[in-house]
Amino acid sequence: MPSISDELKTAMADAAADVEKVMALLLPDKGLAEQRLFDAMRYGALGGGKRLRPFLLISAARLFGVAEKSSCRTAAAIEFVHCYSLIHDDLPAMDNSDLRRARPTVHKAFDDATAVLAGDALLTYAFEILADPQTHEDPNVRCNLVAALARAAGANGMVGGQMLDLVAETSPLDIGAITRLQRMKTGELIAFSCEAGAILGKAAPPQRHALRAYAHDLGLAFQIIDDLLDAESSEEKTGKSVGRDEQAGKATFVSILGAGRARAQANLLAQQAARHLNIFDGRARHLEQVARFVVEREF
Amino acid sequence: MPSISDELKTAMADAAADVEKVMALLLPDKGLAEQRLFDAMRYGALGGGKRLRPFLLISAARLFGVAEKSSCRTAAAIEFVHCYSLIHDDLPAMDNSDLRRARPTVHKAFDDATAVLAGDALLTYAFEILADPQTHEDPNVRCNLVAALARAAGANGMVGGQMLDLVAETSPLDIGAITRLQRMKTGELIAFSCEAGAILGKAAPPQRHALRAYAHDLGLAFQIIDDLLDAESSEEKTGKSVGRDEQAGKATFVSILGAGRARAQANLLAQQAARHLNIFDGRARHLEQVARFVVEREF
Repeated sequence: MPSISDELKTAMADAAADVEKVMALLLPDKGLAEQRLFDAMRYGALGGGKRLRPFLLISAARLFGVAEKSSCRTAAAIEFVHCYSLIHDDLPAMDNSDLRRARPTVHKAFDDATAVLAGDALLTYAFEILADPQTHEDPNVRCNLVAALARAAGANGMVGGQMLDLVAETSPLDIGAITRLQRMKTGELIAFSCEAGAILGKAAPPQRHALRAYAHDLGLAFQIIDDLLDAESSEEKTGKSVGRDEQAGKATFVSILGAGRARAQANLLAQQAARHLNIFDGRARHLEQVARFVVEREF
Repeated sequence: MPSISDELKTAMADAAADVEKVMALLLPDKGLAEQRLFDAMRYGALGGGKRLRPFLLISAARLFGVAEKSSCRTAAAIEFVHCYSLIHDDLPAMDNSDLRRARPTVHKAFDDATAVLAGDALLTYAFEILADPQTHEDPNVRCNLVAALARAAGANGMVGGQMLDLVAETSPLDIGAITRLQRMKTGELIAFSCEAGAILGKAAPPQRHALRAYAHDLGLAFQIIDDLLDAESSEEKTGKSVGRDEQAGKATFVSILGAGRARAQANLLAQQAARHLNIFDGRARHLEQVARFVVEREF
């Protein structure tokens, strides 16, 4: 397989730079007594990362000619939710991770209480941003974004998936249960990232559904590769604590399928993801490229 | 002073029963693998409590003839946010409280990780409820509710106040700083409870502002009484861990003003709160009664 194309690399870097500019503006340095909270929010949200979800959103939104301000603000909200979930997930009560993006995690750099609050504040802020008329002029669109993000991030989505992950430590899962867990834990927010582009652009239902289907397959492929990286990689390569699944005795795609079949499954899902985009007649090239290269994970 | 009137008692009990019915319907017993999460959400949200914020919202909404379904759903959302804040506040990393509403706190009854997730899920759910067309037919109203709740609950409101509370453990506060802390930590959500009634009822700005002003004074009076209770009371009476402020060496209204002046200040604020309601020509009787009796805190 070819290495990730320069075009995709550039497009992802551009989108990341755009959204980080908006994120930094949304998290100002205020110098108030509670500055420590804002510092922790900035540390947890502005510390790099692949910005995959913003890229998916911005690429999907471009299919419908959405204004850049709308997609960048929505991308920032999604990324704040992603970052909040990492901050809480890394807490001693949860995964107890010391390292994230090659730096100390938020509770290590600050303290546990500040990390809890910084996560809470980022999550809350995401909804404030989406409900703001600056994000989109149509209040129906804004309400749809809020409702869809809440569904993706809440008890029936990401948080529910994290709960399943905890439950999995004591009761082993089969492949169906792991698939459901991962669809909830990471798949729903990735699906929202694509779907939000369709919501912003008031896309027709078939296009919206195609993007959701694409994102679901992509999310699962992404997660399988994550499990492979966790099983095979080193902290230097991934920039975060690794080998935790194995230590915890957790069932993963890799532990059940084995590395070879897991990789084959990820490839299959990535191809399937790209096929959902046929409806866009080649205009969704960046999203197609992401599907092709997510299984290589060089970004 | 007279004991709390039977009328107010009945009205508060009715409102609490109405909103708890809605809250229970919104948190169904699903029997899924992640049921533990829903159990913890139900335990943390349906375990009683005064339901003061729902009562304020329902009373304010009645001034503008808001449909009961709208106000009950909005009240449930506010109470979910209040309950999430208690769950996270009680965590070992924060206040480390074992007792709340005369029962073990959520992390004691379940575990720390489940408590973090249950709080996250309740917060997220609140926004999903507000953005749902069932809450109000006008998407502008729903967006206003989401944005105002996020501002009240986020880094510039409740969560910021909790951060200030942590900072206060190491750097003593003066009366101005404590007032700001309490306005953020508890005042903003109480203010939103009243303001949301005006938003739902599309009230004119002077009425909306009157309700905010009422709620701000009420919230401060409420907090001063809370400090007095913490300093003077027993766990049996309050149903939660007490004496923590003193143990932590935290400055409170009571430690700075003394019990007598603190009580006088609370009375003054309660009177001032009630006067903001003059604009409603006696139609806001329940809210007036709350202001009068909040300083007695028999409910």
